[in-house]
Formats: sequence, structure tokens, C-alpha cells
Amino acid sequence: MVTEILMEQHINKAKTLIEAIPYIKSFRGKTVVIKYGGSAMVDERIKELMMKDIALLKLLGIEIVLVHGGGPFINENLQRLNKQPEFKEGLRVTDEETMEIVEMVLSGKINKEIVNDIQKNGIPSVGISGKDGMTLKARKLLANGVDIGFVGEIESVDTKVIECLLGCGMLPVIAPVGRDEEGNSYNVNADYAAVAIASALNAQKLVFITDVKGVMKDVNDPSSLITLMNIKEARENIEKGIISGGMIPKVECCVDAVESGVKTVHIIDGRVEHSMLLEIFTQEGIGTMFRMNGDE
Amino acid sequence: MVTEILMEQHINKAKTLIEAIPYIKSFRGKTVVIKYGGSAMVDERIKELMMKDIALLKLLGIEIVLVHGGGPFINENLQRLNKQPEFKEGLRVTDEETMEIVEMVLSGKINKEIVNDIQKNGIPSVGISGKDGMTLKARKLLANGVDIGFVGEIESVDTKVIECLLGCGMLPVIAPVGRDEEGNSYNVNADYAAVAIASALNAQKLVFITDVKGVMKDVNDPSSLITLMNIKEARENIEKGIISGGMIPKVECCVDAVESGVKTVHIIDGRVEHSMLLEIFTQEGIGTMFRMNGDE
Amino acid sequence: MVTEILMEQHINKAKTLIEAIPYIKSFRGKTVVIKYGGSAMVDERIKELMMKDIALLKLLGIEIVLVHGGGPFINENLQRLNKQPEFKEGLRVTDEETMEIVEMVLSGKINKEIVNDIQKNGIPSVGISGKDGMTLKARKLLANGVDIGFVGEIESVDTKVIECLLGCGMLPVIAPVGRDEEGNSYNVNADYAAVAIASALNAQKLVFITDVKGVMKDVNDPSSLITLMNIKEARENIEKGIISGGMIPKVECCVDAVESGVKTVHIIDGRVEHSMLLEIFTQEGIGTMFRMNGDE
Amino acid sequence: MVTEILMEQHINKAKTLIEAIPYIKSFRGKTVVIKYGGSAMVDERIKELMMKDIALLKLLGIEIVLVHGGGPFINENLQRLNKQPEFKEGLRVTDEETMEIVEMVLSGKINKEIVNDIQKNGIPSVGISGKDGMTLKARKLLANGVDIGFVGEIESVDTKVIECLLGCGMLPVIAPVGRDEEGNSYNVNADYAAVAIASALNAQKLVFITDVKGVMKDVNDPSSLITLMNIKEARENIEKGIISGGMIPKVECCVDAVESGVKTVHIIDGRVEHSMLLEIFTQEGIGTMFRMNGDE
Amino acid sequence: MVTEILMEQHINKAKTLIEAIPYIKSFRGKTVVIKYGGSAMVDERIKELMMKDIALLKLLGIEIVLVHGGGPFINENLQRLNKQPEFKEGLRVTDEETMEIVEMVLSGKINKEIVNDIQKNGIPSVGISGKDGMTLKARKLLANGVDIGFVGEIESVDTKVIECLLGCGMLPVIAPVGRDEEGNSYNVNADYAAVAIASALNAQKLVFITDVKGVMKDVNDPSSLITLMNIKEARENIEKGIISGGMIPKVECCVDAVESGVKTVHIIDGRVEHSMLLEIFTQEGIGTMFRMNGDE
Amino acid sequence: MVTEILMEQHINKAKTLIEAIPYIKSFRGKTVVIKYGGSAMVDERIKELMMKDIALLKLLGIEIVLVHGGGPFINENLQRLNKQPEFKEGLRVTDEETMEIVEMVLSGKINKEIVNDIQKNGIPSVGISGKDGMTLKARKLLANGVDIGFVGEIESVDTKVIECLLGCGMLPVIAPVGRDEEGNSYNVNADYAAVAIASALNAQKLVFITDVKGVMKDVNDPSSLITLMNIKEARENIEKGIISGGMIPKVECCVDAVESGVKTVHIIDGRVEHSMLLEIFTQEGIGTMFRMNGDE
Repeated sequence: MVTEILMEQHINKAKTLIEAIPYIKSFRGKTVVIKYGGSAMVDERIKELMMKDIALLKLLGIEIVLVHGGGPFINENLQRLNKQPEFKEGLRVTDEETMEIVEMVLSGKINKEIVNDIQKNGIPSVGISGKDGMTLKARKLLANGVDIGFVGEIESVDTKVIECLLGCGMLPVIAPVGRDEEGNSYNVNADYAAVAIASALNAQKLVFITDVKGVMKDVNDPSSLITLMNIKEARENIEKGIISGGMIPKVECCVDAVESGVKTVHIIDGRVEHSMLLEIFTQEGIGTMFRMNGDE
Repeated sequence: MVTEILMEQHINKAKTLIEAIPYIKSFRGKTVVIKYGGSAMVDERIKELMMKDIALLKLLGIEIVLVHGGGPFINENLQRLNKQPEFKEGLRVTDEETMEIVEMVLSGKINKEIVNDIQKNGIPSVGISGKDGMTLKARKLLANGVDIGFVGEIESVDTKVIECLLGCGMLPVIAPVGRDEEGNSYNVNADYAAVAIASALNAQKLVFITDVKGVMKDVNDPSSLITLMNIKEARENIEKGIISGGMIPKVECCVDAVESGVKTVHIIDGRVEHSMLLEIFTQEGIGTMFRMNGDE
Repeated sequence: MVTEILMEQHINKAKTLIEAIPYIKSFRGKTVVIKYGGSAMVDERIKELMMKDIALLKLLGIEIVLVHGGGPFINENLQRLNKQPEFKEGLRVTDEETMEIVEMVLSGKINKEIVNDIQKNGIPSVGISGKDGMTLKARKLLANGVDIGFVGEIESVDTKVIECLLGCGMLPVIAPVGRDEEGNSYNVNADYAAVAIASALNAQKLVFITDVKGVMKDVNDPSSLITLMNIKEARENIEKGIISGGMIPKVECCVDAVESGVKTVHIIDGRVEHSMLLEIFTQEGIGTMFRMNGDE
Repeated sequence: MVTEILMEQHINKAKTLIEAIPYIKSFRGKTVVIKYGGSAMVDERIKELMMKDIALLKLLGIEIVLVHGGGPFINENLQRLNKQPEFKEGLRVTDEETMEIVEMVLSGKINKEIVNDIQKNGIPSVGISGKDGMTLKARKLLANGVDIGFVGEIESVDTKVIECLLGCGMLPVIAPVGRDEEGNSYNVNADYAAVAIASALNAQKLVFITDVKGVMKDVNDPSSLITLMNIKEARENIEKGIISGGMIPKVECCVDAVESGVKTVHIIDGRVEHSMLLEIFTQEGIGTMFRMNGDE
Repeated sequence: MVTEILMEQHINKAKTLIEAIPYIKSFRGKTVVIKYGGSAMVDERIKELMMKDIALLKLLGIEIVLVHGGGPFINENLQRLNKQPEFKEGLRVTDEETMEIVEMVLSGKINKEIVNDIQKNGIPSVGISGKDGMTLKARKLLANGVDIGFVGEIESVDTKVIECLLGCGMLPVIAPVGRDEEGNSYNVNADYAAVAIASALNAQKLVFITDVKGVMKDVNDPSSLITLMNIKEARENIEKGIISGGMIPKVECCVDAVESGVKTVHIIDGRVEHSMLLEIFTQEGIGTMFRMNGDE
Repeated sequence: MVTEILMEQHINKAKTLIEAIPYIKSFRGKTVVIKYGGSAMVDERIKELMMKDIALLKLLGIEIVLVHGGGPFINENLQRLNKQPEFKEGLRVTDEETMEIVEMVLSGKINKEIVNDIQKNGIPSVGISGKDGMTLKARKLLANGVDIGFVGEIESVDTKVIECLLGCGMLPVIAPVGRDEEGNSYNVNADYAAVAIASALNAQKLVFITDVKGVMKDVNDPSSLITLMNIKEARENIEKGIISGGMIPKVECCVDAVESGVKTVHIIDGRVEHSMLLEIFTQEGIGTMFRMNGDE
């Protein structure tokens, strides 16, 4: 027998489900690309919640594509092998051995762990790298004209494998490794990979899971969060110095994505429990949203 | 800006959504037939909640088919027209004029109101009667050999229109009116219609929405609710008199449905808010469940 | 043994079938919307023949959609309930109770009778109202600025349910009841509904079944029938007073339909036996035909 | 203006069309194999009517497959080339040159003429021989152990090309020429080819168009026509001598076809105008019908 | 046990297969129309090799359509029947009897022999004439205003039957006989038929199999072969007299085909063993290739 | 201009292609699982040829699925990290850190290199591990009851992802890593994985690429190669000691695969150039073939 109190709780939960109706209706069948990174990739509890969020969204009929970076694991593995990091022009010099380790960590460890974590929720997932099915075509990136090895930039995206997997009901998880015509592998920036993939898929949403609340006017004042920017404002805020430091390339990614056709782009705080669900299922969302026009 | 407290609430709601994952997974793509009746059809607030529940279930990918009865509306309309009710062998004598009014109320008023109420939640719904597409083939029902007019029993179900509408993403709502080979219309019992339709569709679940908590050993003691019966127990309980009065035909319907292949059949209390969601989304369910073997 | 005479008759019938070849070829797979009304809806014998005509056309691969009005049945039912008709600006004031009765008669009685009559010929048919699947979106119609209750005009047509049913081989029969965003029901003019539906379906033909021979220069002289008008002539004939009285709105409907893309629109005499077949299967057709250019 | 008399005639024609409803319903989508031969292939007027019948049946949704023989044309062409016919055991000795002429006449002349004649009625038709797509696999037929050249019997039927053409809406016309594994061509009996094809297609009907009224008890008394035989009766009638002469192999074909699954097999008189339509569209049919049990 | 030498041979053969990879990749799924004629149609050994080439190409996923002419067979058959050839304006006068023989030879003999020869390699093939499915619509061709009988030119091509057969995995073989609206048959030039069909199919390649090496500057000097021409050069070479005699109409066909959208057109020497494979599977190809621009 | 000699060579190559016809015909659309290992994975030249063979087979319409092992790369990487190998009961003790490295090498290095190598031939390929899409469900393997860590045996195969990729025209490459219900990763034997996958796919062929010629009666005498064994003979040869040492588990794999429905299983010598092509495209094949009955 269900007690009165339990029944009361059940009914309140039912009300919560009912409140989700309009959100489910507006996102069903839409494509959402998630750039997964930061604490949400490291903290076991946060990670578990994030995977549940993603599983639910997939189950509700949203086409999720997940792009991940390397987080702290690449450095850990390089240290384990006594590889000394070397930098030129602010970018890591990636010699052949480094690239081999980077690729093993990205495609063989992190990628498969994420797949595994999603699958714990019963959602079939397939981990690929940008090399599979020639998904990410890359070319060598020069750092101010200096050759820093196997660091690449994306030339084009072939969405065939991603669409194949979505068509079979799978959730694709993508490691940011690309290849050129000759078959050389390149480490590509995961944020840029997410933008390129979201654009190529004409995604409805691109969500960057980060370790910040979003774009803030004053980084020390949480109440200064800017919840919505159009791309014009975003550019002005960079010019005026309101957006600065490491936030600049992130915001530039958001602007790029919006300009290449992604409807809305979000910077959200992965440290908040269920941040993905809060973004999708609340009216205010969380973090900062970018779109073409701020006044729609 | 979202306050701390609001955020806390949002996160709790997200948790509720996450808890729904296993239920969504097990019912997606399954067919659930709902016999809609009682207070849930009359009380405006309860009705509105019920329609939201049904809309959500449809949105989550469950194939809902709704069968309704006439509730108090038929008597009201007969009175309005000064038709004096006449009974033989406990069944209403249904002359041609009565049948005409019954059909207008069922197919023209109640049916379309339900369709309208579901559609308020953005779910496209189509109301048909058992005559449309020759869905319910009926024949005259004699009450102990006495002709009581256009009261019918179901001979067979043609699921073509129902499957056509489900295939187009519509939610079919069915009025319990059948037709015979000659094209005569018959008022058929809505409970029996729901059983016949659920069997013909090989439904996963058939849910009777009623004004009782379920089957109780002592109708005055809510704590005596029997939450689960296999069909053997159900028959024994009728024989022993534990199930009595108006509950007997209801339970016989449940047994019939289970025997013709419906996985589980439920008697639930439509007066409870969100009773349909509680049935689907809690482990205990609500009311009484019937299935082939009680020990599974 | 078949006698010589019978054989002769059979052969003559075969010749008639053969003559139908070019007509079958030109209409197969085309959509024909029929506005069904007048005597053909009341006179039992004419009705039966009309239903046979429609059944044959469906069988020959023509996509038939039938829109009906209320005929004399609405008044009958209002009288039965002692509702006194009230008119403002020439339109019936439709209070809530009236609307309830109108809808029951249209969707619950007439609609289902037509479905039944078609199905007697073995053609599966499904009766819906414009509310089902949100087919007819309506808004309140003011009569010269005066609110006369639940009388509506069509804002838009959603053909999803109609196309779903045609796709499943069903013949849709549509009652002229619409709904607005809030879910209010409106009685809409059946002629206008037929025009809106035919336009939305890009129909090949729209046929109005009436109680007149067609448009006549002199209503007392059957030989003055105008068999063909282009829309320019139709407008001139209204201006000149050649078309007058109740024929004006009918002809305006025809002109509207042609202008919104229906290839040909016809006013035919439903009192003539097999009028629908004669329209489709004779070179002259019957009644008056409207098309974009009269000289094609 | 349409005169009264013309209208009267039109209405009578409409009635004839209406009478066809049940026949159209029962044959739509069914496969009917026609063995085309005799006068209907030679007499220009009868041929033209036959082609119209076939065109109409195709248009009404019946899947027609036509198998033809050589009629008098083969002899004509052999004479033209001064080939002296030679017979052994009652069968034409078919040397290589004869076979070459036979094949040219069957596949290059008669086959294409039939295709052309059907297409005059706007029905796309494709003429193939049993060699195309390896449709008719044949082997040498010995006449009582005597080699008479390229006369073959059918070993198996590959229906792939026939079904391909039916699937594209084409009407296949088949010349009775088969091939063996080595690619040798054989003249096969057209009646046997029709039986083998009808069986392989699980046809609803196989119709032999002949120059006789059907099977008659007394060939001189038209009133002695047997309209219906089950296969047991057919065999008895052969044993008793009621069926004799050239009618024996024809009736054996009918019995074979019924036994290999063709529902009904017919011998009809192609000299009667519109004989195919009379067979399909009258209750009595014409000629003699064979089926499994005579009393159904 | 496989000996060393045999193994060596096998490995060399494997290398040859590997070399074919890029050619297979670039032609898979493309349409290649082959005009089959000359020695390759007469010499038994060359014919057998040609059929194997065609079978292999089909098996590798190239959509082959074969158009054939009459070769020497038409004259042979006319002589056999003592028909004296008559010419006007350089074209054979084709009276009704001649046309009948031409059609029998083309559609009943040559067409079916080619089908048979292809099928010996296990590739299902279907032989049609341009009359089947109304593929080749033709009209009477006047020779300088003089009526020379049933000689036709192509008005339009209906590719429905060809595409139907390709869609079913069949290899269509087409005899150059067309029909006009009235159903008259016409002998059409096979080269022109091949051009019209290749254009209508948007073919990748059209290959003329001939008895010459290709276009040569000096017909007596094989080393003067022109391997590649753009259409401008082709026209100039005709003007300058470099291309002359019977080669002019052939080259004009090639130019026409390129101009109506065929990517490349080839004149190859059917007398060379495996000429079709050499054309497809070597970089140089054989013979002369025509394309829009010679410098690509 | 192509010289005579070159032409001669070309023609010989064409002959080789032609000889492949029957082999292409018999393997098109069939599934062939390849267990890739040994020298063919290490020797650059042999590897390149092997990848070309595989690319060609895919291009010819054979559904290739490649399963690979770890080769020498796992030890190399363990050494690089100073992990001391530890063995119990002849199996490597695989602690968590070892498993992490094993998985990175298998899924992140070897798997992606193979994908890359295949793609160099223009064939799109996707590398997955048995964890992706829950393809390989594994459980802990005890070595004679001793826990040796994350070494697993396959419980079941879910072919959904493999079939999804084949359906999209991709070539799946599978790393032998499985997962259990809790999401633990296990290193599984690649030979067993290949057998399990081939069985689950109902493969036509399973090919083990090894560093031996096949099964030899006398390992020192190449001429003692057994080219064909049925499973009864295979078992007898193990019992008799003719098959011994490391060859026993390999042959047991072959027997298992044949018994679970794979038509033929092969042990071939990857050190031979183009060994895969020789196996498919020569009558003798190479190496040792196993099948149900040796005498077919």
C-alpha cells in the first residue's frame, strides 16, 4: 500500500513531468551538439548526472551528438611516459610520439569511457574519432608560421557516419582527431570541432559544458551573468574588453556557430547538477545563450 | 537571474525527470488502451489533468488509444427530449429514436470534446466511432432472449483505421457505437469495446479509469486494496464473493483481456490527480493490476 | 445458359464500360472534393444512387473527399428541443446550447449516416469533423460587426488527417465544424469549408451537389443553362444581374476555388439520378462548370 | 445542351458502370493470365475489341499477363521461305532454320504487334519472350522418344521479369520461347506456357481465349455447354468420352492449372465481342469454368 | 598443392585486380550506353569476349544499356525472301513487307540472340524494342522530301521501361524500332537511337563499337589515331576534311551526344579482344574519345 | 599511342578480370569476417597489399567485417610504461592499469590505424570496440578458477552497430574489447571474438590471417599442407596429435565457427602477397579450409 505522503510526493513528481511537455514538444527530432569538457568530465558524481541528462534527452527523441576534449588525461599520460611538454607560440608542440599518445588517450580511453558511461543508462552509443568514415578532414595548423607538428585545423566535415549512427538510433561520441588526404592524424581543438560538426549538421543547439557560470560582466560577481547575447553584442563586448582572456576564443566559437546556422549556442556551467536538463527544460535556461538576434 | 532557491527547485525537478528514464524506456512504442470514464470525464479539473497525462504519454512515444463511454450525458440528453427510460432485464430498451440520441451524444458531443481537450495540449487527435472504417462489427444483443432494440455486442474488430491513425502520429478516440452488415447502428458497452480493441491491437496495457481505488477486500477499508491478481485468483475471488456487485463484470473484463493477450490490465482511480502518470511512472502503480501469472 | 437476348444486353453493357476508359485514365489518382447537400441528402433513393456513384469513383482510383452540410436536420433537432431560432443580419444566432446541438447533429448524426451509407457499398470511410486533427482552424465571424455567437469562418486548413486517411485507402467525410486556438467550436459554412479544403488539397475538381440544374440565364427556362464560365464571365454575370439571389454566394465560392488553384468547379443537380457519374463520365458533363479560362 | 433522350441514355450507362462495382472490388490487385489465341488474334475487329477489354481490366487495377501463341503466322512465314513442314509423332519437326523463323515470328512480329495494339489504348506494355530474364527454362521434348528438334517443354518459370514489369505498371506480353542451360532456344506450347506462368504467379484466373463456346456435351448443340466443372468431373468427362479430340489437351491444361493453385480456369469464346469483359463482369461468365470443387 | 609457379601467376593476377580499384570506384552506379555493331556482332569469338566484358561491367555495378543495329542479318533475310533492295536518296526504301522483315530480324532474332549471349554469363538481360513501353517515339523520315516508307527519326525517348529494368537488376538490350502515335512501326538508325537513349538517361559514357581503330588523321596510318577531341576540334576536323566519308555521321553523333549531356563518347575498335574492358579499365582507353572540353 | 606490347599486356589483364566473374558472382552480398593479425599487421608492405585486397573485396560488394588483435603493440606499450608482465595459468594477469593500456592500444591506436589504412584506398571505414553499441557482452574469465583480472570471455554479440555500419556502406573494424552489465571492460581473445561475430552475422566465410601456411601434417614440410578438412576430420586430427601445440586452439575456433553456422572457415598465410584475394579468387584458395562436410 502506498501511503498518503508517498502518494503526495508521486503526484508532485507527475506535475513536474507534465511541466516538461512544451519543452519535449519543441526539441523532439532536433539535433543538439554537446561539447563535453571540464569538471563534468572529471568529477565522478557530476559526470554520472550529466550522462543521465544526456540519456534522458536522447530518450525524449532529441538527436544528441557529443564531442569531447582530452581534459587533464593527456598531460597525465604524457607525464607517465616522461614526455616533456614543449610549447611554441602558446601551442603544444606535437611530435609523432606525442600525437600517438594523444590519439590513444582521446580515441582509446576518454572516448570509450564516455560511451560506457552513457550506455550504463541503457542508451546505445558509438564512439568514433574524426578519422572514422573520414568525418573530420584536417590540415596542419601553423602557429604564426611555425610548424608545431601534428596540430590541425578542420577543413571540412563529412557527416555521413554521424547521420548513419543517428539513423540507427545510436548516440555518436566524437574524439577530436582529424586526418588529411595522406592519412596523417592531427589533434584538433575540441571546441572548433564541435562548432564545425554543429554547423555541418545544421544543429538546433550547440552547448559548451564549461567550468564557468557563463559570460559575466565582472568575473567575481555571479550576479553579473549575461544570460543572452546576439552576435553583434558579443563582438562589441569583446572589443570593449567586457569579454576577456580565455573567454574570448570561447565566445568567438559561439559567434562562428551562430553565423554558420546553429540556432542557439550556449555556455553552461557543468559543475551545476543536471545542468543540461536545466538548460533544455527551464524557461530561463542557465548560463549564456548566443543567437543571431538578441530581441527575438 | 535565477535565484538559489529557484535553482534548487529546478534541480529537484530535473531529478524527477531522470527517475522517469526506466519507465520511458520500457513503454516506448508499446500500445496502451485507456477506457476513459467516471469522474475523470465530468470533473473539469481532474479531466484537464488526465488529458495532460495522456498528452505526455503520447509525446513520450507510447501509442495511446482512448475508448470512452457516455457518462451521465446520455441520460441528460434523453431527459431534455422527454424520452422516458425503459428497462428490460436490467438493460436499457433502446428504440430507434433513443439510439439516434445516444449516437449523437457519443459520437457528436463526448467524442469531439475529448478530442478537443487532448488537442489543447498540442497533440493531434482524431475522434471516430466504431462505425468508421467498419472498426466495430456488432450484432444485436438479446437480454435473456428479449429484444431490447439497438443494444449490440461486438463480433469483431477491424483495426485498420486505428493503425492508420497511429501510423500518422494521431491519437485515436473511439466512441462505442458498432454496426452490423446491414448498416444498423448499435450502442455497445464501452468496457467490452475497450477489451475487444485492446485484444485486437495486442496491447501492452489496458487501463480502466474508474471511480474506485481498485478491487478491495472490504470496500469500506481502503487499506484492503488488492494491488495484484493473476487471473486464477481473480476468478477465485469472484467465486468466494470477495469481488461482488458491480465490480464483477469489471473484473471479468480484466480477465477476458488478459486471456486474449493483453499483458496487464488495470483498474485505477480516476479521481486521483495524475492517476495515469502514477500508474505508468511509479513502481507500485496505483489501483489493481491483473496479469496472467501473479508471481512474475 | 445465357440467352441470345441476355448476351446482347451484356455486350451492350461491356461497350459502356469500354467507353469509360478515357475518363478513368484522366481522373485516376486525382483528388475530387464533393460538397454534398440538398435533396441528394434527403431523398432516400437519390441518396442511395449518389453513394453508389461515389463508391465507384473511389474504386476507380479517384481520391474522393466529401464535405457535407446540415440540411434540414439541424432545424428539426432544434425544434425537438424547443429552441427558438433567432437571426441577426441574416445569420442564425448560435448560442452555446445551439452550437452543442448543431455539432451533435453534424458530427454525430449526419456525418456518421453518410459514412454508413458509403460503407454499404463496401468502401471503407471515416467521418471526422474539422476539429479532428485540427483540420479546420476557425475564428468567430462577426455579422456586420455584430457577435452572433459560435458562427465561424475558416482561417486555415491542416490537411494532415485527410491525407493520412486517403493514404490508407479510406474515404474521408468531413463535418463543417471548426475550432480556434482556445478550443472553441464554430459552425462554419459547408460551401466555404469545401472551397478551403479543395484549395488546400490542390484538388482537380470541386463539385457542389445542389437542387438546381446549374447557372441559368433565365431560372424559369432550363434551356438557358450556362454550361461553362471562366471566372471573368462569372464576375460579369454577377455584375450584370444575370446571376442573382442565392446563386451569387455559390458562384463566388466557385470563383474563389478556381482562383486558389482548383482546376474545375461544378454546380450540378443532385436530383438527377447518377449526377456525379454523369459529370465525370460524359463529355458534356452536367450543370455549370467554372474554370480559369473559358476557351481551353 | 444535353437533350432528354441523351440524358436518359447517359443515365442508363451510369447504371451499367454501377453494376460493375462488385466485380471491380473482387478482382482489383488480382493476377489474371490470359492465353491469347484463335480468331481473336486474326480478325481485326474482334482483336481491337479484345485489346480494349484488356486495357480496361488493367486500368481497373487487375494485374494482366498475356501469353500468346503463333496462330497461322508461323505457317505463312515458313511457306514464304519454301520450308516444307515435316511431322513426326504428330509434332512438327523443328530444325534450326525452322526454329529461327518460328522465333522471329513469335518474338519479333506477333509479340510486338500485340504490344502495339494494347498501347493504342494508352496502356504501356512490354513484350518479352520466355528467354528474356531466363523466364522460361525449357528442355528438349522427345516425341515418344524421337528427337524432333527444337521443341521444348517447360522445366521451371522464373517470374522475376514479369513481376518487375507488373511492379512498374507495365502489362507483360510473353512469347512461348524457352531456353535451356546451354542457351538453346525451344518452341514451347503456348497453352502449357500459360499454365506454367499462371501457376508460378499464383494467379487468380487463367483464361484460354479460343474459337469454341467452351466444353459442350454435344459439339453440335450450343445449348449443351457445360458452364462449370470441378477437376474430378473434368477427368470423368474425359474418361467417359464426353470430352474428346482436340478438347482433351485443353481440358488437361485446365485441370493442371487448377491443381497447381490457379483459383479458376476458363475456356471462353474469343469470337464473341468483348468476351473477356463478359467473363469478368457478368455473374454467369461465359464459356466453361474449371475449379477445385464444383459446388462452392 | 599449388605449385610455386602457379602461385606466382595467381599473385600477378591479384595485382591486376588491384589495379582495377580506381576504375571500379569511378564507374560504379554510372550509366554506360553501348552501341553494339560491326564485327563484334558477327565474329563468334570476338562476340563471346565482348559479352563477357559486358557481363563483368554489369557485375561491377555499372548500369549497362545496350543498343544494337541489324548488321548483315537484315540483308540476308531480305535475300532469302527474294526482296530486291531499292534505294532512294541513299536510303533503303522500306515498304510494309520490308519493315515487317526488318522488325522480325531486329526484335525477334538479333535482339534475342544478344540477350541469350549475355545470359550465358549469368547476367539476367531483357530484350525490348523501342516500341515496348513506348520507349522510342518516332516519325516518318523524308529523304530530301521523298517518302521512302517506314524509315523513322526519333522524336522523343520515354526511359520508363529502361529504368524499370535497371531498377530490377536487369540489363536492357534495345532494338532500334520506334512507333508513332498511330502505332506505325519505323526502322530507326541504331547510332541515332543510342545517342537519344544516352542523352535521355544522362549517361556517363556512350561507346560506339565499330570496325575502325577510331578517328585517324590518315586512315592508312594507325599511328595517326586521334585519341581525344573536344567538340570544337571535332567540328573543325570535319570542316577541314580530316574527318571524311562514313566517319562524318559517326562523329556528328558523338558531338550531338556530348552536347546533350553525355560526359564522354567513344569510338572504339570492336575487333580488338576485350575492347570494352580496355576502354573502361586503362588510363589511355582505346580509340577516340569525345568530350565537351579537350583540355580537362 | 598505345604500343603493341602494352596492348598485349592490357589484353592479358582484361582476361584476368574476366576470370574473376564467377567468384564475384558467388560472393556479392555475402558477409566475410576477417581476423586480421600476425605479420600482415606489422610488415608495412604486406599490410599495404592486404588493405588493397580488402578494399577491392568491399568494392566488389562483399560485406567485409574486420576483427583485429593487438599484435606486438601491447607489449611494447606496457614496456614503455615499465609495467612488468605477470602470468598465471598461462594467461596474462590484467590489472586495471594494464587493462587501461591494453584498451588504449587496441581501440585508440591499432584500430584507428587499420581504419586509416583502409581509407587510403578510398573505402570509408569505421573503427569501433566491442563496447560500442554494447556489441560484445563479456564476463570475467577465470583461469582454472583463478582471477586474473580484466580478461573476459564473450557472452553474447549484439550485431546492431555492425549491421548499421554495413547498411550505410561502411567497413567496420572491431577491437576485441568487451563489457559486462556493470560497464567493466575486458580484454577478449581476438580469435574468439571473430568466431562469435561471424556466427552472430551468419557469415559466409571467416578467414584467419596468420603466419603459417595452414594446417600441415608435418610442420617442417610445406607440401604436407591439408587444404580441406571437415569438422569430424579436424577433431580426429587433434586427437591423433596431427594437429598440436598452438594450432589446437586455432583449429578449435574453426570447428566452433563451422558448427555455429559459418559456411567455411579458413586459416591462410598473411605473409603471402595478396593472400586474401588468392583465397577468394582462385579455385584452390590458399591455406586450410574447414567446413561441415569435407566431401561437398
